[in-house]
Amino acid sequence: MDEKIVSEILKELKLRKEREKMPIPAGVSNRHIHLTEEDFKKLFGENCKPTLYRKIVQPGFYACNEKVDISTEKGTFKGVRMIGPCRGYTQIEISSSDARVLGLNPPIRDSGKIENSPGIKIKGPNGEITVPKGVIISKRHIHFSPEDAKKFKIEDQQIVRVLCSPGTDKETIYESVLCRVSDKYALEFHIDTDEANAAGVKTGDPVYII
Amino acid sequence: MDEKIVSEILKELKLRKEREKMPIPAGVSNRHIHLTEEDFKKLFGENCKPTLYRKIVQPGFYACNEKVDISTEKGTFKGVRMIGPCRGYTQIEISSSDARVLGLNPPIRDSGKIENSPGIKIKGPNGEITVPKGVIISKRHIHFSPEDAKKFKIEDQQIVRVLCSPGTDKETIYESVLCRVSDKYALEFHIDTDEANAAGVKTGDPVYII
Repeated sequence: MDEKIVSEILKELKLRKEREKMPIPAGVSNRHIHLTEEDFKKLFGENCKPTLYRKIVQPGFYACNEKVDISTEKGTFKGVRMIGPCRGYTQIEISSSDARVLGLNPPIRDSGKIENSPGIKIKGPNGEITVPKGVIISKRHIHFSPEDAKKFKIEDQQIVRVLCSPGTDKETIYESVLCRVSDKYALEFHIDTDEANAAGVKTGDPVYII
Repeated sequence: MDEKIVSEILKELKLRKEREKMPIPAGVSNRHIHLTEEDFKKLFGENCKPTLYRKIVQPGFYACNEKVDISTEKGTFKGVRMIGPCRGYTQIEISSSDARVLGLNPPIRDSGKIENSPGIKIKGPNGEITVPKGVIISKRHIHFSPEDAKKFKIEDQQIVRVLCSPGTDKETIYESVLCRVSDKYALEFHIDTDEANAAGVKTGDPVYII
C-alpha cells in the first residue's frame, strides 16, 4: 500500500518537474461584455458594427472600441468594454468585488453557461436594454490548443492547480482551474482582477500547473 | 534517500491531518489607518480621542467611529476607518487594487515596518496632514496566542500555506503566510479585500494550514 502511494507520489513529482519548465502566460480579464448582434444594434445603432480596439490573445477575438454602462439599483460601472465579435448570447463577466458593488450574487461559471444568472441594465449611446440573465463571474480557466494540451498532458475539462508568483509575498496556488482545449484557443490562463491582484499577477506573467 | 523522503512526507501528511481538524477564522481587512496621537489630534482636534465603533477580534484593538480621506494626485478614498488605539507610528494599510487607484507601489509588509514606504495626504474634519511614509500592503498573516501556536505546532515568524474555501470554485492556497505569535493576539487569519474576493472568503470563514 505504502509502496503504491510512493510510486504515485514520485510519478506526480516527475510530471510536476516537467511542467515547472513550461510557463503559461496569464491573461487578466477586467469586467467586460459579450453581445448578440440584436442587443448590439439596440445599444449602438441599427447600422453599426463592433470595431477593433485591439486584438487579444485568443484567436479571432478582439477588444472593441464600443463600451457600455452596466447598472443595478445598487451600483453602476461605466465604460465596460465589449469583446467582439458578436455571439449567440449576451454575457457580462465581472469580478466578485464588482458583484458586491452591484449588489448581485452571480454564479461562478464557464463562459456561455448563463442559465439562472442575474440580469442587468445595459446602456449604450443609442439605447438601453435590460437583459433578464447573463451576469457571471468567470471561472478560472486555461485555454489550450490541442497541441499545447498534448505537451502539458492535459485533457479538456480537466481540473488543475496553478501556481502564481512563486517566491514572492503574493505567491498563490489557484485550485479548481478548468482546462479548456480547442483548436480555436491559444495557451493562456484567464483570471479576473480580484484574482490577479491577490496573487500579484499581471497579463503576460508566467504561471505554472503544479 | 528515498526512504528519508517518504518518512518526511508521511510526517508532513500526519501534521496536515491534524491541522485539517483545526479551523482558523478569517478576518478580512478593508483599507484602514492607524494614527499616532499627534497625527490624530491634527486631524480630529486637540481635545479629541478615538471612540469605539466596534471591537475587533484582536484583543485591545477596535474599529473607531473616526474616518479620514486619503489621497494622492491620482486618486482618493473617502471614509477610511481608523483602528484604535493610537500607536507609535501612522500607518495606512491598503490592498493592491487600492494601490492601483492611488497610483502607489507600496511594499508588502508586516504591520509596523514602514521604512521606505510611500507617503500620502490624509484629511480629517479638523485638518489635513501629509505623511512622508506609512502606506503598506499588509502581508498575509495569522495571529496566534502562545497557546494556539503550541496547539498548531507553529513558531513565531514561521511561514505556512493556508487553504481557503476547500471544495468550491474559489478554492485557493495562499502561500507565504507569516505566523505571528504573541500573548496579545487571538487566533485569526488576516487578508485584504483582494485576497478575500479572489478566494471567496468572508470574515469568520474557516481556513486551514496545510
